[in-house]
Amino acid sequence: MAKAYQTLVEKFLQLNRLEHAMTFLQWDQLVMMPPKGNEARSNSLAELTAMSHELLISSEIGELLEKAKSEEADPLIQKSLFEMERNYRNAICLPSSLVKAQSLAGSKCEHGWRTQKGENDWAGFLQNFKEVVVLAREEAQARQAKSQNQCPTPYDAMLDLYCVGDSSEFIEGIFTDLKATLPQLVQQVLHAQKKQLPLTGGYPVKQQEQLSRELMKCLGFDFEAGRLDVSMHPFSTGDRGDNRITSRYREDEFVEGLMATAHETGHAAYENGLPEKWTGLPVGDSRNMCVHESQSLFFEKQIFLSQPFLSSFTGQIHTVLEETIRFDADDLLAGCLHVEPSYIRVEADEVTYPLHVILRFEIERDLINGAIEAEDIPELWDSKMQEYLGLSTGNDHKNGCMQDIHWTDGSFGYFPSYTLGAINAAQLFNAMKRDHDDWAKRFAAGDVRFAREWLSENIWSKGSTMESQEIIIEATGERTNGKYLLNHLKARYLKEED
Amino acid sequence: MAKAYQTLVEKFLQLNRLEHAMTFLQWDQLVMMPPKGNEARSNSLAELTAMSHELLISSEIGELLEKAKSEEADPLIQKSLFEMERNYRNAICLPSSLVKAQSLAGSKCEHGWRTQKGENDWAGFLQNFKEVVVLAREEAQARQAKSQNQCPTPYDAMLDLYCVGDSSEFIEGIFTDLKATLPQLVQQVLHAQKKQLPLTGGYPVKQQEQLSRELMKCLGFDFEAGRLDVSMHPFSTGDRGDNRITSRYREDEFVEGLMATAHETGHAAYENGLPEKWTGLPVGDSRNMCVHESQSLFFEKQIFLSQPFLSSFTGQIHTVLEETIRFDADDLLAGCLHVEPSYIRVEADEVTYPLHVILRFEIERDLINGAIEAEDIPELWDSKMQEYLGLSTGNDHKNGCMQDIHWTDGSFGYFPSYTLGAINAAQLFNAMKRDHDDWAKRFAAGDVRFAREWLSENIWSKGSTMESQEIIIEATGERTNGKYLLNHLKARYLKEED
Repeated sequence: MAKAYQTLVEKFLQLNRLEHAMTFLQWDQLVMMPPKGNEARSNSLAELTAMSHELLISSEIGELLEKAKSEEADPLIQKSLFEMERNYRNAICLPSSLVKAQSLAGSKCEHGWRTQKGENDWAGFLQNFKEVVVLAREEAQARQAKSQNQCPTPYDAMLDLYCVGDSSEFIEGIFTDLKATLPQLVQQVLHAQKKQLPLTGGYPVKQQEQLSRELMKCLGFDFEAGRLDVSMHPFSTGDRGDNRITSRYREDEFVEGLMATAHETGHAAYENGLPEKWTGLPVGDSRNMCVHESQSLFFEKQIFLSQPFLSSFTGQIHTVLEETIRFDADDLLAGCLHVEPSYIRVEADEVTYPLHVILRFEIERDLINGAIEAEDIPELWDSKMQEYLGLSTGNDHKNGCMQDIHWTDGSFGYFPSYTLGAINAAQLFNAMKRDHDDWAKRFAAGDVRFAREWLSENIWSKGSTMESQEIIIEATGERTNGKYLLNHLKARYLKEED
Repeated sequence: MAKAYQTLVEKFLQLNRLEHAMTFLQWDQLVMMPPKGNEARSNSLAELTAMSHELLISSEIGELLEKAKSEEADPLIQKSLFEMERNYRNAICLPSSLVKAQSLAGSKCEHGWRTQKGENDWAGFLQNFKEVVVLAREEAQARQAKSQNQCPTPYDAMLDLYCVGDSSEFIEGIFTDLKATLPQLVQQVLHAQKKQLPLTGGYPVKQQEQLSRELMKCLGFDFEAGRLDVSMHPFSTGDRGDNRITSRYREDEFVEGLMATAHETGHAAYENGLPEKWTGLPVGDSRNMCVHESQSLFFEKQIFLSQPFLSSFTGQIHTVLEETIRFDADDLLAGCLHVEPSYIRVEADEVTYPLHVILRFEIERDLINGAIEAEDIPELWDSKMQEYLGLSTGNDHKNGCMQDIHWTDGSFGYFPSYTLGAINAAQLFNAMKRDHDDWAKRFAAGDVRFAREWLSENIWSKGSTMESQEIIIEATGERTNGKYLLNHLKARYLKEED
């Protein structure tokens, strides 16, 4: 092997070892750390971030990349170099003065938002948020300028951080189709929906946690290679061999915790199934958020909430949470699948959820591309909520445009991945069913191993050796196509043939 | 402020932020990490260790130290520089080839020991251990050579890593006095000791953990600035603002867990009480292991096991562990203070414990200074055990010279700090009682705040601004003196006037 590539491998593995440290220190910060530990932890993380950034943007890496690209012939090594270069370019394209200004403005805005949200104080929030928008536009333009004509608009350059390879034009096309169908579909579902037994009751957190563990085991989680804990918002992080997921539990309800657990188990499965031979290198990373979210939603919406799987799991629910014996498998399913338009994205069911995302996509796209200003957001939010979901937010900003954390620190371009993930999940599940027509029988027997193997072969083992649409096409026969989500929703909620 | 010192402060704070990362990643490794996470974690820690070592030994630091020493006049800044230089010298005095060879030989020997110990395989262990000894002697000689005539023997140079400032001659003097008294004292105690009710029973781990938390609260631990968890061996680590301590619990016994908790709470109190103005700099660190161990033993042996405190805590023991109601405060105290010569150091009571340490000190001193060879250890161990504790280990190596982990990776010089800590604890407690003659009344009322304040003022707030014997003299009026431990033991176990 030629020397330049080998040196790059060493350097990226070193970066990965720093990344490992940051990953688990951040997990600890959210899950274990006592409040007074925060200052020292933040300082340590900032130091590691700076050291890691400095290592990545060194001119030596740039030179080694050029040298290695001309030396290496193996297409997989070329792909590995391509992904190294992608990381390198994403790091060097921003002037450090901008990165620092963004970090300060983002912290200030997010910090303020934590109280302004509760006080419905849009005017106060706007003061800080305007600066975040100015800097995000600068970032988007700088990224676009360095994209070698890959990004037609500044927003595309932001999108590329989370939906690598999927352009805003492509996403717009998909979202246009969804918008044409979903508002009406929501009404049909509401009309067809039967009255459900409310699943509320008194469910001790300890038992719910035990039930979550049993669900994870059913879904193939390896507790020798990971943990389940509790945090304010469920999340998944870690490494191959050490997947840390969290869930949360309410005393009066048990479905939310189970769905979060199934969701995060999907994220963990993807990370743990990434190609071992590329461990620690960019080409061995998960592809992007649109694929990641497809795995979590595959586990949550396609496996866990399928009638056969949930039926098979009902016995365990009854055993661990005795009070639930009054609900049979059908009651549980109906309770889990309750649809209702609401103001809050994170509480939305899978039928209304895409409309929340489309609304945010349209606003953030126009904001970053300069077609609207921050001041315009509340009015746009209200009118789109009325149009898509039949709800008016008026001046209730805390349940409107101030509800999410994403924009407060400038993470524009993230939202679409939730719905692209949902589409990919439905599309992948459809393809998997073609390969395994006995899927329902197996799920009903509590067997999901074949589904994991299918995902492992078609998604996990690919890492970043292919672009996301190449992965989806190879797995399903076509590009990400919104019709699979629509068909899934119609089949599940209107009993139309899938 | 002159520039060289300021630059050094920046560099040492940067080192401290890396140290923070390693501290909490190691805590996670011992307390939280699933088994399959070990490889990536070890790699990440090795990377951080290497980066940190490289930063510390850079020639720039050496030059800045020389410049700053001539620029700075403030004696406290000079002290800060002195401690920076101590760290720097300790890091640069070993050739990196030796450090690497030690790391490999130590890992191999420790790894082998984990199974060889159970199999009583001294011959197998010896094969690996001989290499560890060869390299440790090299290390000791290299450290001695760079000590600017501060270390009269190679072993002194190892000792200096844990007992900074206390020479082997000084320690020998103290241990000679203890050896002259303790074997006979043990016999007197055994003779005087009344038959105790065994404290065994069935004690659920959850309740024991709750009781440990209550004990920590009584001892002044701030749960906003720390955690209690479980690990195989109790330990204490962390930062000001985030002290992580662990304990362990047996179902059939509850005293061991409580004593471990009290012990680790003392370590945490010291760390949390270090001088805030020097946070992150060497001069703000804890002084050495002899002082650290004095704080943990102050909390465990002097506070928790004092008759007034344990009486005040008996009500909480009864409430949380209902089965203990059959023991009154005197039964509990007698059970906790049971004395019995035994083979295993970590299970030893405070009367026999120093003899275990003296035995190890004498052997490791002679081993490192070349007076004996590794092959000689079992025979020496057996004869010293007979002489000091009246027990023969014969060929039972797993309960003899193979019982401890310390030597397996070359940590020679650590053992004396356990007993110097016990002496310092007794000596400090004696001094505190002079300042607070109502101590017993206060302890009986569950009040230990005055004791914490006394330690804070006399020990914790000093950090490393003074040498350890200067700290002990200022706090107690004299150097570390074994008579305080002997007086404490006679008073507690033979009811002689303290």
